[in-house]
Amino acid sequence: MNNKVIAISRQFGSGGRTIGRLVAEKLGIPCYDQELIEKISEESGLCEDFIKERGEYASSGNWLANAFADRDYYGHSVQDDVWFAQRKVILELAEKGPCVIVGRCADYILEDKSPCLRVFIHADMKSRCERIVEQYGESNQSPERRLRDKDKRRAAYYNFYTDRKWGDMKNYDIALNTSSLGIEKCADIIASIYNS
Amino acid sequence: MNNKVIAISRQFGSGGRTIGRLVAEKLGIPCYDQELIEKISEESGLCEDFIKERGEYASSGNWLANAFADRDYYGHSVQDDVWFAQRKVILELAEKGPCVIVGRCADYILEDKSPCLRVFIHADMKSRCERIVEQYGESNQSPERRLRDKDKRRAAYYNFYTDRKWGDMKNYDIALNTSSLGIEKCADIIASIYNS
Repeated sequence: MNNKVIAISRQFGSGGRTIGRLVAEKLGIPCYDQELIEKISEESGLCEDFIKERGEYASSGNWLANAFADRDYYGHSVQDDVWFAQRKVILELAEKGPCVIVGRCADYILEDKSPCLRVFIHADMKSRCERIVEQYGESNQSPERRLRDKDKRRAAYYNFYTDRKWGDMKNYDIALNTSSLGIEKCADIIASIYNS
Repeated sequence: MNNKVIAISRQFGSGGRTIGRLVAEKLGIPCYDQELIEKISEESGLCEDFIKERGEYASSGNWLANAFADRDYYGHSVQDDVWFAQRKVILELAEKGPCVIVGRCADYILEDKSPCLRVFIHADMKSRCERIVEQYGESNQSPERRLRDKDKRRAAYYNFYTDRKWGDMKNYDIALNTSSLGIEKCADIIASIYNS
């Protein structure tokens, strides 16, 4: 299997972003994460914070109601602009050469477009809680509540734009649990598939 | 990670059984599959064909209605006998030494009992169809219909006895798609985790 692009989907707090960077280092290819946000921002003219939030997450509250309420007379929303800009940038990056892309529905966008290894990274609630407190500090909400909210909004976004179920293993070539396998081992496995 | 037991859950026709045998060969440990059925048969006094079918599959038709209708005055069914015998045999085998166990809810039975690498093997419908026709020949039903029926009954059985969702990736350490990765590569990955 000679995959050109590795698309990493991940649960918030599971270490997917770190794995993306590690895999890219091991393979000597770029990992698009922050740079992706900058490029989508340039493409769409929208600010990076908005892209960061609205390129992967449904809005809080009743997402479906908001998704329709936010639309103009032609049925179009700003979130759609982000989606189309994101899609365009991801296709261009995949065209440019081998790379790792973290999140942003790249697994779906690249399907049938580019040879793509589709990876899902997850972990148990306990280790995700520890990880987000370590990385982002405490907040008013409990870590578990923050994670459940993130999961729910990320899934709603993915399901809306791709018409698939986020986290359903049939959409991925490999799904790895970092709580039991460890981040380094997960990166090794992904790199070994890419090289085989 | 020093896993004593590798528990392989798999979609019918995905190559999970072959992977189990390959991994066991690579690691020089036993793989319990047919032998497991023989042992459960000895333990329960029920015939092997019954164990083969009723130790992993819900009955056809309305499974939930049957699951209750088949019970005696004390709320007990023959399928429960299979479950308890299966549970006992799996725990004894895990106690005996490192091994690979294919199917039969071993991932659930061994949780908190034995160090266990929980693997799920799946594949896309097209390659599963090709595989079952190659291995079991044609039948009156289309391969896809046979597979959907197997999936449904296997999931119903697992969900009933474990109170979990069959195929939900959070219950596994690793999930592998044999359609894209190939059977040999999947076996290599599992063996490398066991050895790490």
